[in-house]
Amino acid sequence: MKAFNDLADFSAEEIKALVALADRLDAHPEPDALKGKVLSLLFLSPSLRTLASFQAAMTRLGGGSFVISPDMSIHGLETRPGIVMDGTAAEHIREAVPVIASYGDAIGIRAFAERKNIDSDLAETEFSALTDLIDTPYINMESAMNHPCQSLADWKTLDDLEVPANDGKFVLSWAYHPKALPLAVPATTLHMAAMRGMDVTVLRPEGFELPDALMQKAAAAAETSGGSIRETDDRAEAMQDANVIYAKSWSSTRHYGDRLADQKLREGFLDWCVDESWFGNALEDCRFMHCLPVRRGVVVADEILDGPRSVVIPEARNRMLAQMAVLHQMLGGGS
Amino acid sequence: MKAFNDLADFSAEEIKALVALADRLDAHPEPDALKGKVLSLLFLSPSLRTLASFQAAMTRLGGGSFVISPDMSIHGLETRPGIVMDGTAAEHIREAVPVIASYGDAIGIRAFAERKNIDSDLAETEFSALTDLIDTPYINMESAMNHPCQSLADWKTLDDLEVPANDGKFVLSWAYHPKALPLAVPATTLHMAAMRGMDVTVLRPEGFELPDALMQKAAAAAETSGGSIRETDDRAEAMQDANVIYAKSWSSTRHYGDRLADQKLREGFLDWCVDESWFGNALEDCRFMHCLPVRRGVVVADEILDGPRSVVIPEARNRMLAQMAVLHQMLGGGS
Amino acid sequence: MKAFNDLADFSAEEIKALVALADRLDAHPEPDALKGKVLSLLFLSPSLRTLASFQAAMTRLGGGSFVISPDMSIHGLETRPGIVMDGTAAEHIREAVPVIASYGDAIGIRAFAERKNIDSDLAETEFSALTDLIDTPYINMESAMNHPCQSLADWKTLDDLEVPANDGKFVLSWAYHPKALPLAVPATTLHMAAMRGMDVTVLRPEGFELPDALMQKAAAAAETSGGSIRETDDRAEAMQDANVIYAKSWSSTRHYGDRLADQKLREGFLDWCVDESWFGNALEDCRFMHCLPVRRGVVVADEILDGPRSVVIPEARNRMLAQMAVLHQMLGGGS
Repeated sequence: MKAFNDLADFSAEEIKALVALADRLDAHPEPDALKGKVLSLLFLSPSLRTLASFQAAMTRLGGGSFVISPDMSIHGLETRPGIVMDGTAAEHIREAVPVIASYGDAIGIRAFAERKNIDSDLAETEFSALTDLIDTPYINMESAMNHPCQSLADWKTLDDLEVPANDGKFVLSWAYHPKALPLAVPATTLHMAAMRGMDVTVLRPEGFELPDALMQKAAAAAETSGGSIRETDDRAEAMQDANVIYAKSWSSTRHYGDRLADQKLREGFLDWCVDESWFGNALEDCRFMHCLPVRRGVVVADEILDGPRSVVIPEARNRMLAQMAVLHQMLGGGS
Repeated sequence: MKAFNDLADFSAEEIKALVALADRLDAHPEPDALKGKVLSLLFLSPSLRTLASFQAAMTRLGGGSFVISPDMSIHGLETRPGIVMDGTAAEHIREAVPVIASYGDAIGIRAFAERKNIDSDLAETEFSALTDLIDTPYINMESAMNHPCQSLADWKTLDDLEVPANDGKFVLSWAYHPKALPLAVPATTLHMAAMRGMDVTVLRPEGFELPDALMQKAAAAAETSGGSIRETDDRAEAMQDANVIYAKSWSSTRHYGDRLADQKLREGFLDWCVDESWFGNALEDCRFMHCLPVRRGVVVADEILDGPRSVVIPEARNRMLAQMAVLHQMLGGGS
Repeated sequence: MKAFNDLADFSAEEIKALVALADRLDAHPEPDALKGKVLSLLFLSPSLRTLASFQAAMTRLGGGSFVISPDMSIHGLETRPGIVMDGTAAEHIREAVPVIASYGDAIGIRAFAERKNIDSDLAETEFSALTDLIDTPYINMESAMNHPCQSLADWKTLDDLEVPANDGKFVLSWAYHPKALPLAVPATTLHMAAMRGMDVTVLRPEGFELPDALMQKAAAAAETSGGSIRETDDRAEAMQDANVIYAKSWSSTRHYGDRLADQKLREGFLDWCVDESWFGNALEDCRFMHCLPVRRGVVVADEILDGPRSVVIPEARNRMLAQMAVLHQMLGGGS
């Protein structure tokens, strides 16, 4: 595997094989699998779970990693092409990224969206500019519109919970949050659920529609898998017989890059905080998923997070196992 | 071993076995003992020795670790229960701690005392709130009133120096410091020396008495071990025939949580800086111990730190060896 | 090997053996060579390549490392001898350095020059004050006048490029940079090229002469190796038939420690930015080397960095391989 960048680059069978490998590595550790192998971890945006779970994953497979992050002395990385570097930035990504990559057998890169122009973000302009600089195998640790490690972990979580693939009902719901957040998680989650063959409903208030390009990409995946995609702002309709609700806040796509207009619009939807009242017509054991971090009392009520519906902790642990499978396949000579 | 939280949870024989294991691992390295095992390290307070020595310990045993610390992008961790998280904190410890723990086979946690209310700190309210969130084996890397890894290292240091256990005389002395410091080290040191069977004198000015609860806990340990506990503000009396002086500054317990009153009181004791004049009636080879970091010329004179009495460097190295023993027993299937 | 501090401490044959070992470890990984061994990494100055490459090197050899850096909670390390520590610094290097060293089988230390007094910096006063505190084998990760890991990597890079040793022509050129930078890299590069037997020209504007002591040290090395050393401010003369230009900015030695005078002087040399026009009379395949980080459009033009002359990326990768050789010889029981 040369890159783990987008679930859409793989067939459902390939994803299932990765999930099976994750299960196997959990049950039967392979502490010699990646002996002496190095994973470079480059964070251009903050991280907790990804930072911790990738380091743990490499150790469990017998290798190791190193971290370069914005907390360190590299704030001043210049990204603009053709610039005369007479300001504060001492190094250009054109040198930094290939050098960091050259110390590893693979590199994980995180770079959040700029969120100025939605077409540029949908085209992954910024992330491609980084990966174009390297020949090393790489893992997308979250870009403008992708977070494949999260989705692989979520697929495994759905399997662990025995949520049916075909005929399972998956609600991806917008939730209130004081800030305009990136689209990476909703984009990748939508695609994952479609690719798994589920009947997916995107539940969101007006102005928070997911971009057409993402909906069409997911619809194509649903067609192949036997799933379906629809969109609504009607909570009751969306939650009817749901197996799972996956909550996440995201930016208004109507006002993308316009912070004030987004702010004004979202403040009308303070009541989009998932609580038990949402589950009236869902399946009795309908689960609550979230990629974390999550704001309690804002995105979701304590009663849900602390109750039996929530699977957010095992879901987060699956990040480590899913990434072990990816690393094993990328660096260990196949599964 | 499910937790290494308080020396008082173990018998003297169990502690001696850990010290023996530390000695053995120093003499006969076991670089495969914890192959593929992961230690999660969560620092909610700053660290140098603990940070370095735990990472080194895991590497020496063939495993690895990852660090999540306040230097990173998690400053905003919310700790208050039931809060509506509409401020700057993006994640609650109720998610962060179990997730971080789930990536490791064990977790080390450091969280200094709040130092607002002494009863709350004596009850380890804050630290328990963290460990209650996890099922993973854990190690206390310093809490309000405990620092068991320091004490295990100190026990080993006393053994290395062949300081007699029964009949050995151990002085735990307060020293001046410009800031009001936590009680964790004096509390744990007092208990360690009592449990080792030593005759312990707590030397401190008035207003800096250790809490009754700690003195009584240590007295009970002394009764079992054949040691003794007393308290005085008379330096000459305390140092008479002493084998070891363990210096440490701590907050005034009379003015606990009241910074200004503490400041005013401690400024009367600027002369509590250990120098050679303290040792007039001590044993000729009386040793100087300190957990570090230590302020030169404030807590202790250069002549002591740089002279033959000081054992602070091997004492600090014993942190690594003591922790290797704990990790080996916790994760390696026993010694 | 007890210390890797200065290329001048080794014979050319010893350096060639290290380069050969680096080649061998690249071709034939030895992931068990340093099993259970620990490298302490102490950064008192910022780092990217050194930080990443040493961690990767230890992992590839089966050991591990830990990092203590100024990004962490140790900013307040006191360095002045005999000081009364009643200010903000909580720990003195007299304790911190030996303790950090004691957790490793070897320690790497980086401490940039003070750049107040050139004689003090040439005498490595500050770095020696640190290494005098420890008995552990150590590696100089850049001091006032040394950067031996960079030079070992550069030697290997010249070999990789099949640049002739004797009769090869090496130009070490000053370049413009908005800040007054340390002399470590030019000092160590000059010595490396002389020791390798090359005909070395130091190309720099007036006021930026390298110190006599460094020139004489390099001249002695050149005499042994059959190389030569000269200095000029004439670009065309320097570049005549050059095999390699190694660009680097450094402080004015005429105004050493005088920031304003240095600034005023260097602003007259804004045109010392390496571009294709420099190569008119050089060998056709004349290469461009730089230790990185490098300011594009200031030190060197994009056309050079992005063109076929530049070898800065493989040169940076050689840092890891060179350090693996040093670590293998230092900790692995010889090559």
